[in-house]
Amino acid sequence: MARKHTINPALSPLVNARHHTWKDYLEGILTGDRRWLAQAITLIESTLANDQEKAIALMSHLPEVTHPSLRLAVSGAPGAGKSTLIEQMGLLDGAERKAVAVLAIDPSSSRSRGSLLGDKTRMERLVREPQTFIRPTPSRGHLGGVGANTRETISICEAAGFDHLYIETVGVGQSEFAAAGLSDLFILVLQPGAGDRLQGMKRGIVEMADIVVVNKSDGAQEPLARKTLNEFEQALHLIHREQPTPVLLVSALEGRGIPELRMHIHELLAKRKAEGSFQSRRKEQDLEWFQQSLKRQLLQWILKDKSMREDWKTMEDAVRSGSLPPVVAAARYMESIRSLKPASG
Amino acid sequence: MARKHTINPALSPLVNARHHTWKDYLEGILTGDRRWLAQAITLIESTLANDQEKAIALMSHLPEVTHPSLRLAVSGAPGAGKSTLIEQMGLLDGAERKAVAVLAIDPSSSRSRGSLLGDKTRMERLVREPQTFIRPTPSRGHLGGVGANTRETISICEAAGFDHLYIETVGVGQSEFAAAGLSDLFILVLQPGAGDRLQGMKRGIVEMADIVVVNKSDGAQEPLARKTLNEFEQALHLIHREQPTPVLLVSALEGRGIPELRMHIHELLAKRKAEGSFQSRRKEQDLEWFQQSLKRQLLQWILKDKSMREDWKTMEDAVRSGSLPPVVAAARYMESIRSLKPASG
Repeated sequence: MARKHTINPALSPLVNARHHTWKDYLEGILTGDRRWLAQAITLIESTLANDQEKAIALMSHLPEVTHPSLRLAVSGAPGAGKSTLIEQMGLLDGAERKAVAVLAIDPSSSRSRGSLLGDKTRMERLVREPQTFIRPTPSRGHLGGVGANTRETISICEAAGFDHLYIETVGVGQSEFAAAGLSDLFILVLQPGAGDRLQGMKRGIVEMADIVVVNKSDGAQEPLARKTLNEFEQALHLIHREQPTPVLLVSALEGRGIPELRMHIHELLAKRKAEGSFQSRRKEQDLEWFQQSLKRQLLQWILKDKSMREDWKTMEDAVRSGSLPPVVAAARYMESIRSLKPASG
Repeated sequence: MARKHTINPALSPLVNARHHTWKDYLEGILTGDRRWLAQAITLIESTLANDQEKAIALMSHLPEVTHPSLRLAVSGAPGAGKSTLIEQMGLLDGAERKAVAVLAIDPSSSRSRGSLLGDKTRMERLVREPQTFIRPTPSRGHLGGVGANTRETISICEAAGFDHLYIETVGVGQSEFAAAGLSDLFILVLQPGAGDRLQGMKRGIVEMADIVVVNKSDGAQEPLARKTLNEFEQALHLIHREQPTPVLLVSALEGRGIPELRMHIHELLAKRKAEGSFQSRRKEQDLEWFQQSLKRQLLQWILKDKSMREDWKTMEDAVRSGSLPPVVAAARYMESIRSLKPASG
């Protein structure tokens, strides 16, 4: 954990957020103060133009991260036990003096599928660890997209000295594809009998997983968990025989199987680092994120104009009703964009 | 097949393409002349500004399609027998007086994975059918994306009176996710022993398929084909028990299993039409295509400017080397976009 800087004690992270400069945030983050970190993430997530400018300035001044970090996406249906699993992994990380951040992409604000961290008792042991930071990230509508700022939150946490980052998503929508695109490894958490319960999960998510975990292998559910393990192991072996996905039995509740899971993670990553694919994957992800960020900023700029927002709706309606082919609607909208005055930015 | 129009015979589709107006293309297409259709698709694929203007005008004047059309994506590894399968389906379509168009998204131009239609003997029976149109579509780099104009080609073929459209892709990259996003149904073609040969196929493609076909179930390969069928059936049943993907045994070479495949297709589509999901899926696809087209046209407009192209490369290099966070690179690039003069469009 980096504690290289001291900060003017008169500057409280909790008051006068409006008057903080990017330097205040940066210095605050580098002191290791969780409250500054939380404030900085709020800044990153803000949609106010003034905040966004500060956020970009902060991002462009983040020091280079020299310690090796690990970004793990953990996805699964509601009730699969993702939080308990992350808590157990985080406690073991903590025992090895790794600082752990958990970023939970919470779809509850845009869908009614239940809140990831609404249940306050979750991760209650991990919350108490001094080296830990837990942050629910609201998913957004239109402009933000799901976890629109997660990549930046990752960078800020890494700059703040966190070693292991867990990105938790509920596997029901596009957010886990986004999470997979931001992480080094994608872990899918299933519950016993999952084959009957994958309904509503995005198709493709099982094949995309780097590691599949069958959780809740405890008590009366153990035999069913074992059966589910066998089924998924078999299925994934049949489909991708050349490189079958590891499937592991875990009881996050009782802590069983967690060391094996961590071993698998570290072996897989060590192999990828040796091959160079770990590094090239991060570069590709960054290039992809550059394009996505640009698209988001462009849309934000365009839709700031009231008539452009109205035109957008008109075009979408025309496409939806079939009165305009999509490419023609796009071409008409482009005409409006071309005539946008630079001053309107 | 629509043959509602006559055309000035002095206007040949084969000469003076530069002087053709969008009306010439439209009238030519509506006469049912394949050469005009081919020329119109070439126009749609052109990257010249003048051609693109004509293409948009043509697209915006296409008459509403009143006959029910069917858009089928057919994907699979090289050598899985996709072309033979499509040929057999197309011949049966033809026997029912359906006009068939095959759009093969050919990755050979951007990757060296072999050409889809390079082998001239492919679909030689289907090629001779009068109601058939076969068109390889080059995939493109940067701006075009894979099958960048496929959605428009589909509309033009439908306006020309084609009932069944087959979109053929090689399942190795992003193109089949794009193809799935343009079609009513996604069919994955496997060969016997596919579990050992999925290497290089995009992960997620098996789960995404609406129907899986194990082809080449003939001669010495029949037992292996049957084994592969059982394996995939079992695997897909284990993973998605609530709605297992149908897996079918086919010999495209000998024509066995094709009527059953067609029956499955029509049952699935009839069900979706009754539920309304057929129609809502097309609307969603069109809205998505509107956004994609807009993004493509925006990038094209921006990158027309030489300094914007140079800036783009600079930003990508900075992101790749890690010297700029992706969101900061995007913000810097946005500054250049905002100062782009409207006249530069």
